[in-house]
Amino acid sequence: MSRPIAILGGTGPAGMGLALRWARAGETIIIGSRSPERAQEAASKIKQRVGEANVSGAANVAACSAADLLALTVPFEGQAGLIKELKPFFKPGSILIDATVPLAAAIGGRASRTLGVWQGSAAQQTAELVPKGVKVVAAFQNCSADSMNGDDPVECDVIVCSDDPEATQLVCELAASIPGLRAIDGGKLENARIVEQLTALLIGLNIRHKGHGGIRITGLPRSAYRSVG
Amino acid sequence: MSRPIAILGGTGPAGMGLALRWARAGETIIIGSRSPERAQEAASKIKQRVGEANVSGAANVAACSAADLLALTVPFEGQAGLIKELKPFFKPGSILIDATVPLAAAIGGRASRTLGVWQGSAAQQTAELVPKGVKVVAAFQNCSADSMNGDDPVECDVIVCSDDPEATQLVCELAASIPGLRAIDGGKLENARIVEQLTALLIGLNIRHKGHGGIRITGLPRSAYRSVG
Repeated sequence: MSRPIAILGGTGPAGMGLALRWARAGETIIIGSRSPERAQEAASKIKQRVGEANVSGAANVAACSAADLLALTVPFEGQAGLIKELKPFFKPGSILIDATVPLAAAIGGRASRTLGVWQGSAAQQTAELVPKGVKVVAAFQNCSADSMNGDDPVECDVIVCSDDPEATQLVCELAASIPGLRAIDGGKLENARIVEQLTALLIGLNIRHKGHGGIRITGLPRSAYRSVG
Repeated sequence: MSRPIAILGGTGPAGMGLALRWARAGETIIIGSRSPERAQEAASKIKQRVGEANVSGAANVAACSAADLLALTVPFEGQAGLIKELKPFFKPGSILIDATVPLAAAIGGRASRTLGVWQGSAAQQTAELVPKGVKVVAAFQNCSADSMNGDDPVECDVIVCSDDPEATQLVCELAASIPGLRAIDGGKLENARIVEQLTALLIGLNIRHKGHGGIRITGLPRSAYRSVG
């Protein structure tokens, strides 16, 4: 029995991509949504694509209550509200993977621009809002949702940032279980501010060049990368 | 006779890397420095490494006056002062390639963090300070100086940002003339703010993992990349 992963706000492209890829890697997934029906529909879609997938759907509150390994995949405008709503339901010591990017699209602006977040980044805002003891790990912001929802290896490096080295290592392993991805320890959570910005740059490049951009970090020793390959 | 490139504040690792690589590509280079002697020494070093190099050294003012294709490779703390000093000497219509990154090291902080620049980025500050009609192109911020000063192909993509599409194209060609580099049109100059930040992230990764990090953008169509390869 693998430790279940609850993907909160998980019915959008970012959440579905993680659900699909982790289901393929054999993880137990609970997709969370405001609407339990939508969550169950999303789980069915994953099951149609992945034989033997261990995926269920539930309301966000139920999903949060059922796991101590969580991923947050809502648009920025929904982030703070969802965390406040879920605050009483986090298990002590949970790990929360935050893939949120403060795109200006959240307030009707461009997805190729970002908003300034007082705390420095969306992930640091999350860290301020969760109950004490919940460990926030920023990751997966740069992975193209289109690629994640496809069948090919995802040509992207995942820069994993948190203030808890053990949580970082666990999320590095989860990232590395997805074909194509390489996980890199990106240091403290504060570094998420740059990784988040990078998503806006990639979206701008995607618009300009019609692609599904990702990043690779070159020039680090082999020990810096964790991957299945 | 190729159009000369003046590398202003060019005796540091960033400037020397560009001088070396462009000299190898057959460009005519004028290395600029506060001290003409140091500039000439720097030019001699390039000549020792590149047979037939067309490289000279001069005071920054003389270098700026002698070319309408310029590169700025000073640390952030020297950027505004140098541009103000050179303001009367820019030729109308010049192209200024800005590789500056507003690292917090400029004020005694960490090189893995950046300063907020009122205009949005170091390159946008430059654009505000140069005489009207001088076209600022942000590029080369993410190229490891160690790699640039070496002999191997440089494993990095150069995201070129400016508000002048012709200037962007010219700088893309100059970047692509360096083995290993691929140039990508990164859109408007304002996007430089993300590219600059990325350098601080790479420096943090270099410190953490002991490397010489660079980036590759994946997932764009082949037409998005310009390179010699």
